[in-house]
Parts: sequence; structure tokens; C-alpha cells
Amino acid sequence: LPGPEWVAVRVRLAGICGSDLHLVHQDVSPSASVYASFPFVVGHENVGAVAAAGPAAGVAPGQRVVVEPLLPCLPRGFDAPCPACRRGDYNLCERFAEGRLPAGFGQGFCRDVGGAWGEVMVAHRSQLVPVPDALPDEHAVFAEPLACAVHAVLRHVPDAAGTVLVIGAGAMGLATVAALRALRPAARIVAVARYPHQAALAAHLGAHQVLTSRGRALYDQVAGLVGARVLQPLLGRPLLTGGADVTLECAGTGRALDDALRLTRAGGAVVCVGIAFAPRGVDWTPLYLREVRVVGTSYYAAERVGARTVRAIELAVELLAAGRVDLRPLVTHRFPLRHVASALATALDKRGRRAVKVLLEPAG
Amino acid sequence: LPGPEWVAVRVRLAGICGSDLHLVHQDVSPSASVYASFPFVVGHENVGAVAAAGPAAGVAPGQRVVVEPLLPCLPRGFDAPCPACRRGDYNLCERFAEGRLPAGFGQGFCRDVGGAWGEVMVAHRSQLVPVPDALPDEHAVFAEPLACAVHAVLRHVPDAAGTVLVIGAGAMGLATVAALRALRPAARIVAVARYPHQAALAAHLGAHQVLTSRGRALYDQVAGLVGARVLQPLLGRPLLTGGADVTLECAGTGRALDDALRLTRAGGAVVCVGIAFAPRGVDWTPLYLREVRVVGTSYYAAERVGARTVRAIELAVELLAAGRVDLRPLVTHRFPLRHVASALATALDKRGRRAVKVLLEPAG
Repeated sequence: LPGPEWVAVRVRLAGICGSDLHLVHQDVSPSASVYASFPFVVGHENVGAVAAAGPAAGVAPGQRVVVEPLLPCLPRGFDAPCPACRRGDYNLCERFAEGRLPAGFGQGFCRDVGGAWGEVMVAHRSQLVPVPDALPDEHAVFAEPLACAVHAVLRHVPDAAGTVLVIGAGAMGLATVAALRALRPAARIVAVARYPHQAALAAHLGAHQVLTSRGRALYDQVAGLVGARVLQPLLGRPLLTGGADVTLECAGTGRALDDALRLTRAGGAVVCVGIAFAPRGVDWTPLYLREVRVVGTSYYAAERVGARTVRAIELAVELLAAGRVDLRPLVTHRFPLRHVASALATALDKRGRRAVKVLLEPAG
Repeated sequence: LPGPEWVAVRVRLAGICGSDLHLVHQDVSPSASVYASFPFVVGHENVGAVAAAGPAAGVAPGQRVVVEPLLPCLPRGFDAPCPACRRGDYNLCERFAEGRLPAGFGQGFCRDVGGAWGEVMVAHRSQLVPVPDALPDEHAVFAEPLACAVHAVLRHVPDAAGTVLVIGAGAMGLATVAALRALRPAARIVAVARYPHQAALAAHLGAHQVLTSRGRALYDQVAGLVGARVLQPLLGRPLLTGGADVTLECAGTGRALDDALRLTRAGGAVVCVGIAFAPRGVDWTPLYLREVRVVGTSYYAAERVGARTVRAIELAVELLAAGRVDLRPLVTHRFPLRHVASALATALDKRGRRAVKVLLEPAG
């Protein structure tokens, strides 16, 4: 253990995230390497149990926990936090490459702490979120991805948002629909899904409309829902005169980003929840001529909910424990860790094997 | 005249804008065609004099004016404004393709109203900004581009901004430096210029530091100014650990956008003042991993300055009339309108002829 405030956590269940698939396929920008130290164990979606605890860790062995994977100023040993950490935005810490740990956002990118696709991780006490006894592992393992959705929604979807479009109904898109339903109950949620099994899950989790069309038909349908007109340029895809107030892009492709920009109203926001480091074919015209802003989200931090400030991952555990969000229907496959190659192949096969969330069991 | 509230304005002086150069070179996204009607007369930077006025125009012939080129709900004849116009964001009007005028943002894109590169434009009374007698034409012709800079600054540079980076020192970059100096006096302005004559103008207009380096040297210098570290990825250009609070990208190239994203602190903003509809080589990593947001600006609208609400173009005329902004040093060339081809060739030759702002004189 790196110090008295650290613990060893034995992983009980881990998830495969879209970003992990990018990583495994080396579909990651080289720029991201400044936030990693090699070699590292992949994986950040997790639930585990404390196996060993330092004397100042504040938890006892056996305690079930979710490890918040980020390693900002505090676990890195800085007494005086950086400006971002000071305001609670520790996902934007300026010291992810400094301090007593090697470079890296955290578990899944950092050489010395392990990752969720291993048997054991080490974690600082500030990273631990206790899991209530009544919350089963296969429920708690969603705390991490749900926290990403919670952050995106709380930061970028105003309470007054009328229509919120969610493009992409993989695990992140579906978690986003669930977070919207729980945290922005007044918003109308329109989800765009590619496959029928995704569409069914989006409806189950609370999307008010689910669209599976593409191309012009998609534009016509969104326009009908928001009372916008479809404008047809001389060349290329249409633009709406109005559109969604906020579009959460959860597919992580250039095409989805291009659609997102065209389907969002002037002055609205496109929130990048999926990841496309070097997207192709994105026409920035709506950004220039309609002032659609594009915002990214990275992990999560301290969030404001009404008058309360709470860490997104704690709020995610609360939402799961209270039954306000239940993402277990997303689990389509479970593999023992030693079959990680099969698990990855399955996770990539969204059409054939209808994969949504694939879990790994280190003890399996 | 289209109606009793309309006037004919004889152009006295017109400017060549970077967006006009994009247009002439067909370096415009086909998507933008939904906001234009063909054929149109190019040109929107203008100062002129009322030549004929409808009975309800509220101005007399001879009055010097700047025509605000936008044609939103009001001049289009809608009594009930669209949601964007209602909140004063008439640059985001949802009806630029509807109403009693053909499609188009306004002068320079609309078939029936003329453009500033012609002898006469027609304009609605709501578009007219009177020019004080003491303000010469070659000063007033900057009201239009200055209004763009005013809008970008007031909307996206908070009062509390520490360091503001301006990339690009063509006419828009320089107008942006001037607007920052006038409206955000507490901010430190760091300008990045490509050519020595641009650097001299940036310093003259109030930039606190002017950098002319490129590549790694630029990153090192910005890092030194803001107290950031330079992180070198395994491949490609660096990233800063901190960076500018806001970066105003005024060059309109993919390269400048990529630099802007890397030189802006986590949680900061890149404001697209220049235009690059389909930028190449932009690595979105800072948007994803550092939550740098990207916002576009299109023209200008009603702005808030402290407790006051004022149209950006009126504020621009005020700033020019009060001598708080003087952009006349930007004028490097004047051509009679009949030599527009030479004027365009000159405007494009920023290096050889040191062109910054090229003006056209319709009566020349």
C-alpha cells in the first residue's frame, strides 16, 4: 500500500466501457497519453471489497465499495489542492501527471494502482464509496458509468430544458436516459437507437419517444416532435429551424456528432458523452451560424443538485440503492476474467449478440 | 422599397470580411445555403447614407447610417417574434428562411436587399444605426466587424477572466483585442500573430503580450505566461496543464483550433470567431478529457453590459464615437468598387502586401 490512508480492494465485478474498447483497439488520441503511465491494467467500472486497509484508511476489511477511479490532488499527496480540485472539479485536476503516483487519471490508466480488469486494485480512502448491503454487486457495478451520466445531465441539462435528445442507446446512452428521467423529470426525452433491443431498453428506462430511423426520416421525426421545420441545403443533410434544447451524443461517432449539431436548436448545446477523438465528417456550420455549443464531459466530480453538493458517484450509488435507477436490464453477458478476449469480442458485437453491458468476474 | 418602414441606403464605404473571402472562394459549407437566396450581392461591412425613405421609416434622406445586416423576424414582417428574437438573440432567429423576404441572414446573403459591395442596399428601419457627424466613414465602417468582436467578448469572456488568448491577428483578431481592451479591462490579453505588421497592430490596440512563435515555442511561451506546465504526449503537439481561461480563435483554420484546444485550461472555453466549416486535423481530446467547451459566434444581437442591454452594433458605434476603439490603423488598402477583383487579391495577400483591412468605395 502506498501509505496509511490506502486500501487494497479485491474486485468482485467489473464492467467493459466503450472507452475501454477504444483503448483495446488503440482508437485513442496520442494526446491522451499525457494522462497515462504504462503499463497499466485496463478497467474502471467496478465493485469490490476491501481486502486490506492501512491504519488511517477509515474502513475495515470486508467492506464492499465502489472505487471512484480518479486520482486527483488528494490521493496524489498534495495538501494544497489545484484550482480545479479546490472548486470541486477534481475530474479536471491539473496534476494528473504529478505527485506521489505516476501519470494517469486513475484506475485503468495508471501503472501503480491496478485496474478493474485485474484481481486487486489499490485505492486512497478518498476514492471509496461504501455500497449498502441491500445493493447487489450487479447493481452497484453501474455506479461508475451512471456517475458519468449524472455529471453530464447535472452540468449541461438545465432544469428548464424542454426536449432533450439522446443519440445512441448503448450502455452510456441508456444510463443517460435513466439519469435524465431521475434528475430532470420535466424534460421530454427523445432517444435515438440503432437496434431494436436498444430501443426497447430506452423505452423501459424512461425515454418518452424512441426513434430508430436514420437520415432524412430521423430529421423529419425530430422536427415533428419539437415543432421545427426541416431546411434542406443545396447539398448534404438537412438542418432544423429549431430543434432539441440539449442533445447528448452518446454514440461517439463523427456521424452522430454531425447529426447532433444539426438537430439541436440555435443557442442549444451538444454534450459529448461518447468519445470520438478525431471525428470525421463533422460540419461545424451549426456551431458557427447557430451558436450551438459543444461541450465534453470527462468522468464526474462534485455536483450541485438543488441546494446540495454531492459527488456524482455517491449520488449514483444513492439512486441505485433507492431503486430510482436500475440498470441491471443492460447486462447481456457475464464472463470470467480469464475469458476477457471473448468478453471483448462480445461487447463489440452489438448487432449479432445484442451486447449492451458485458461484465467481468475476476473470481469466475 | 418593400414597405413603408424601409429605406434605400447608398453605400459610402464597404469592408472585405474574412467570411466574404470564404464565400468568393466557395470555401463555405453547403449547409449554409439554407440561410441564403441566390443570386445575392456580397458584402455586409458598411457605412452609407439614406437615399430614399418610406413614410414610416423614421429617418430622413441624407442621414448617415450603418446598416445592421441581419434580417430576423421584425424586418421579415412577423408580428409575434420567434423564441430567439423574443429573448434578444435575433442573430439566432428561426425564420431566416421565411416571411416577406427570401432566405438569407441579411445583406450579403439575401437576393432582394442588396449587399455592401453594391451601390445601394435596402434596409428596414430596425436595421439602421445612425452615425454621429463627428465619426468619419473610414471609422464607422468598422462598426459591423467590431460588433462581432463585442458580441464574442460580452457573451463568452467573463469579467473575472484572467488570461485571454487571441489566436490570429487579422482584422477580426485585432478587433477582438480592441474589444477586450475596452470591455474587459482587467483581463490580460495575449495575442498570437503570424506576421510582424499584425503583431505591431495587436500591441498598438492593447494586447499585453504578442507572440509570433509557432509549434513548441508557442506552447512554452504561453505556459510561461500562465504558470502552466507543458505536457508532451507520446506523439503530436503538447498540451498545457493549465492554460488560458478563454481562447478566442480568430484565424479560422483547423490548426489554430487545434492549438486553441491545447492552450486552454481544463474547464475553459474556445470561442470560434474565425470560421472553419470543416476543419482538418483537430484533435478533440481536450474537449473530451479536459471539458474545454467550444462555442461559436454568429454576428451579434442584444448584449448585456453590466445592468444595461444594448445592441452590439450600437455599442460598437458608441465605442468608435467615444474614441475608446479606433480601428483605422487596420486599413491598409482602399479600392474603387469597380476594381473589386484587385481588392480581393490584395485582401488575400496578407504576407506580401501586408493586407489587414481592405475597403471598397462604391463611388470611387
